[in-house]
This record gives sequence, C-alpha cells and structure tokens, in this order.
Amino acid sequence: MEKTIYNFSAGPAMLPVEVMKEAQAQFRNFNDMGVSVMELSHRSSEYIAVAKEAEQDLRDLLQVPDNYKILFLQGGGRGQFSALAMNLMGKNANADYIVTGQWSKSAIAEAEKVGKVRVLNGFEGNDNTTPLAHHWDLDPNAAYVHYCVNETVEGVEYPFIPETGEVPLVADMSSTILSRPLDVSKFGLIYAGAQKNIGPSGLAVVIVRDDLLDQACPQTPIVMDYAAMAKADSMVNTPPTYAWYLAGLVFKWLKRQGGLEAMGERNKAKAELFYNYVDNSDFYSNSVHPQARSWMNIPFQLNDDSLNDAFLSQAQAAGLTTLKGHRSVGGMRASIYNAMPIEGVQALVDFMDVFAKQHS
Amino acid sequence: MEKTIYNFSAGPAMLPVEVMKEAQAQFRNFNDMGVSVMELSHRSSEYIAVAKEAEQDLRDLLQVPDNYKILFLQGGGRGQFSALAMNLMGKNANADYIVTGQWSKSAIAEAEKVGKVRVLNGFEGNDNTTPLAHHWDLDPNAAYVHYCVNETVEGVEYPFIPETGEVPLVADMSSTILSRPLDVSKFGLIYAGAQKNIGPSGLAVVIVRDDLLDQACPQTPIVMDYAAMAKADSMVNTPPTYAWYLAGLVFKWLKRQGGLEAMGERNKAKAELFYNYVDNSDFYSNSVHPQARSWMNIPFQLNDDSLNDAFLSQAQAAGLTTLKGHRSVGGMRASIYNAMPIEGVQALVDFMDVFAKQHS
Repeated sequence: MEKTIYNFSAGPAMLPVEVMKEAQAQFRNFNDMGVSVMELSHRSSEYIAVAKEAEQDLRDLLQVPDNYKILFLQGGGRGQFSALAMNLMGKNANADYIVTGQWSKSAIAEAEKVGKVRVLNGFEGNDNTTPLAHHWDLDPNAAYVHYCVNETVEGVEYPFIPETGEVPLVADMSSTILSRPLDVSKFGLIYAGAQKNIGPSGLAVVIVRDDLLDQACPQTPIVMDYAAMAKADSMVNTPPTYAWYLAGLVFKWLKRQGGLEAMGERNKAKAELFYNYVDNSDFYSNSVHPQARSWMNIPFQLNDDSLNDAFLSQAQAAGLTTLKGHRSVGGMRASIYNAMPIEGVQALVDFMDVFAKQHS
Repeated sequence: MEKTIYNFSAGPAMLPVEVMKEAQAQFRNFNDMGVSVMELSHRSSEYIAVAKEAEQDLRDLLQVPDNYKILFLQGGGRGQFSALAMNLMGKNANADYIVTGQWSKSAIAEAEKVGKVRVLNGFEGNDNTTPLAHHWDLDPNAAYVHYCVNETVEGVEYPFIPETGEVPLVADMSSTILSRPLDVSKFGLIYAGAQKNIGPSGLAVVIVRDDLLDQACPQTPIVMDYAAMAKADSMVNTPPTYAWYLAGLVFKWLKRQGGLEAMGERNKAKAELFYNYVDNSDFYSNSVHPQARSWMNIPFQLNDDSLNDAFLSQAQAAGLTTLKGHRSVGGMRASIYNAMPIEGVQALVDFMDVFAKQHS
C-alpha cells in the first residue's frame, strides 16, 4: 500500500496527486503518439495545442481580461525581478517598491541594476508584529509600484490590494496565485514562479497589461523581453515544455475542484485550522500580526526550541515532511498551497498536539 | 505491443528509452520517499545529492578540468546568448563572432545589446557549399571569439576547433555536446541548451573557466550571473529541478553506453550511413560542403519537392516523425542526436529508398 506523505515544502512544493498520476500514466505515450510530451517539438501542432489550452484554462480561472497577455517564461520569480524592471523602466527609470520581507528586498536588488528605486515600508511599524500599511507617500510619476503579495519566509501576506491610483501595480504572486479569486484588472503586471501553486520549478507565469509592453530598455535580453514573448506566444526560444504541460494539468485540476472560489474557501479553512490551533497553544507560537498572516506559508516556533530536532524527526517518521523553517528564520514552517489537502493540515495539527502533550 | 517511434525532432528531441522508463517508474516515488523528485525542495539533502551527482557525471564524461565550473541554468541556449555577453564584456566590450548560420546570427543580435561585435565569415566562400574557414583576421584584444559548433537549421558543423590564440574561445554546443569526446581545455566557455543531447527543454548547461568569472557587467541579472551561480552551486534561485534530474539520468545512461568515445563512433556511423545513402541517390540531396556537414542535423531535399507532403505523411505513418525541415529552409531534416539509435537511421534510409523507388 502506498504510504501517505504530506509534504510541506515551500517550493518546489507538492503537486496534486491526481495530476501526478495522470502525468505518470502518459509519461512515455502522450495522446497515444508513442512519445513523451517532453519529446515533442514546441512548434508541433500537438504541443501548441497543449500550450494554448493551458493558457486558456489559466485565463478562465483568473478571468484575465482581454487586454492582458499571459506569458510562460523561464528564470523563475527571481528572473522576473530583473525582467520586469527592464521591461517597465525603459521610458521612466523610477519605481516605488514596498518592502515586507526577504522576497521584496531581493526584487529591489535587481531593480536597482536598472533604475532608481524608492523603498516604502510595508508595515505600520517596525516589524511584522504590526499591521500592514494601507497608505504610502507614492510617487505619482513612478513607472510602477511593486509589492510581494506573500512573503514565504516570514509568512506575511496582503489580504488587500494596495491602492496606487494611476501608477501601475506590479505584484509578485509566486506563492498566492490561484489560491483564491483575484481581480486582475487592478494590476499592471502579475508574475509568479510556478513551483508553489502552478507546477514544477523552471517556469514562471507573467500576466501583463497590453499598454505596458512598449517601455522596455533596449538592452533587455530577448528571453526576458515581454513584448517579443507576447508576439511569439512565449516561444521566442524553446519554452520549458514539460513544465508548461504540467501547469496545464494543474489548471484543469483546479477547474475540476470548482475553480478559485472553491480553492479560496478551502485555503481559508486550512489556514484557520492551523492558526486557531497555534493561537490556543502555549507550546507553539506565530508572531505575525493577525492582519498580515499568510494562508500559504505558516512559520511557527516551538516555545522550547531545544525540542526542534525531535519535532522534525518524529514528524518525518509520521509522513509529515519538510517542516524545517527557512534558514534565516529558524523554527518550523508549514507551506500549505493548493495541492495540500485539509487532511494534511489536520494530520499536522494532530501530530503537533500529541507532540506537545508528550513534551509538556 | 508498443509501437516503435523514431522521432527526428531537432529539439525538444527524443530522449533515451531506458531513461524515460526509469523516470516513469520513479515519477511519483523517488528513492522510496513517497514523493516525486520534482516535489523535493532544492535545498533538501536528497535533491542536492541528485544535483551534485549529475554535475560530477557530466564532469567525468567530458573530463572537465578542475579550473572550470559547471552551471545548470534556465533560459535555454538563447538565454546564454545574452548571459555570456553580459558576463564576459564587463571589462572589455569587444567581441569577435564567427557566422555560419541562423544560430550564430541570433547570438550576435544579443551580444550587440551589450558591446561591440565584429562579424567574421565562417566559410571560405559565400555560402555553405564552400569549406569552413580556418583563419580569420581576429582581434587579439577581443574579450572572446564566439562560434556555433553546429548550426541545426543549415546542418553545418565544425569538425575542428578554431584556433584563437590567447583570446578565449566561446562555443555554442547546444546540438553537439556529449556527441563525441571534447578537449574542454581549448575553450573559455561552452554552453548548451539541454533539449537536444542532454535532457528536456528548460535547462542550459554552462562550462566556464574560473578566470573568466570576474568580468561581468554590473547590470547582469542575478539569474544570468555566472559568478554568483558558480558560488551558489547554480542555486541562486530555484533551479529547474526536474530537468536537472533527467539530465543526470542521461549522463548515467551515457556512461553505461561506454562514454563519449563510444558515442562518437556511433554518431559517426549514423551520419555516414545517412550521407552515403543521400550522396548515392538521385532522388534526394544535401548541398552542404562535405567538410562542413553535421553529424547531428541533416537537412535534405527531395529533388521533386511536389512530393514533400506525400513523403512526410507516409513517413509519419511508418513511425518516422518530425522530419519536416526548418521553416526557413524547407525540405526535410533528420536530427539524430545521441538518443537516436542507428536502427532509427536505418529505418529512415530504408523508408526513403522504398519511397524513392515508388516515385521514380
């Protein structure tokens, strides 16, 4: 019998079991062609159908308006830190960046290679125990305002969309995309590395408003050039065909789950289950302000951190894997993206409760 | 019974059948962990072991000297057109580029965004019916000399390594890497998109001499920064973990085949079988000069091109797929990388012979 593993990796993360079974079954024989989908030319009609269908399913799920292009690119989220700056700062090399943690800081480091960056604090106070800020002294002439919707390391997430007036809003949605409904029209550009809520690593999705495709720096590498990629249906060069195909299977799975309304309800329930348990425990804790807590990545501490190793090894033995916190934060972290069923969160809470009772 | 398909795609290309069977068997249960290798954190000890072993196997196969780093990156070969220019032209923004076809021209377009490029003709005459050039008026102060070892569109390949004196030689080996033994020490930098001789698309391998890692332009995007990637074992950001794993399986398969000496003999035999047939036919032709003919990608024409559609549909029905020539060249193209067994080339030649007799 197959052992049930609940894998809490922050990324590459677990993929839906149904998707993985389907992919395995057709691994060497796609559509009865006798070859793998990864052995198809990206210019073949069969592969182009796979690619187009994935794009359309993503467009359906997020209700992406017609004046937005969807791109399937390489380089991950971090590649987009560079690409978005080069694509948007060619006419006006000024941008505002809201900082809420490590990922928003890393985005700034890349943007500073391209233009002038103003840094805005994402919190009302000095750290993430204070509420997220709603208002900033934004530059009305900035090329864009950038923020990270969910900081996977600190477990900080925006429950609202910042208001930026006429200035295009650019969002790193690597860890929240497809986790609930989204009003894409509020954004100039959305991007996401795939390896959390979309598919395997090696793929990034960019959703960009048409009118922003004319302001790239002339030095932009062709594989990062959004306008060129939009014109070529993301095939200026050979795309990561297998990752794109797997993303398409995930999009179909999401549709079968009832779409993003249903996923939003499930993800909310999963997060509430976990936070409720931790908040009612005097053995575990999470220090993020309740208004800034992530539904996707939940860092937590054992109040006695000398028990960390025992916690991790017993969890592993119970099939609850990859719970070690990010090396910069320590403690534990449970990443519970779309593919994690509520049964996995319940299993984790049950384990935590037994462990706490054993060690109290 | 499984139908035998010989897939002549130029890339993404067929992968070794043994490798695909192995990958399928462990698709959802890597090393009895109960999860897929693509669901492992790239920071996990289990994944790092996969990554390191692949690197070591590649180092063994190519006998890469210790003063060279091996990088596993995203962006494909075309991404490296930009990356190599940004990494090598930070101190001296001049480079010499030898042109032999479409890929070397595309490399120039990216380098020209970074610095000053001098273009040198790769042939002794005006086209690829003349021999390849051995000598050029090279700039002794150029940052590097770039050439494309094999042009997949035109079917042109260097059977020798150009002599560039003290100037580092940079080679696009996307379609020849691992097809025969190679003296890496003759090069400053070698790069290759994976989807021909290494693995699936979405991965690029870069082999770079240590002393060239200090001359990047400050604007180089972090995901393209060879020095940063070398320092971080190619994990500045999340690498394309599944493609890297599959590449590792291909490297093990190559070792089991007897390494690059054995592959070189096989690839030579495959190419000779095909060219001998075409050269002795008055039904088919290949116009590339015999000294410049590719072992990997063989464009060929039906002398009566009104038969092209019939040829392609009958070949497809016989399990010989993806033989249509590149849209810029027309006619046919057979790509016969490492994973194509000689039986596949024989089956193609046999089919061509029957077709020729039917239509003569």
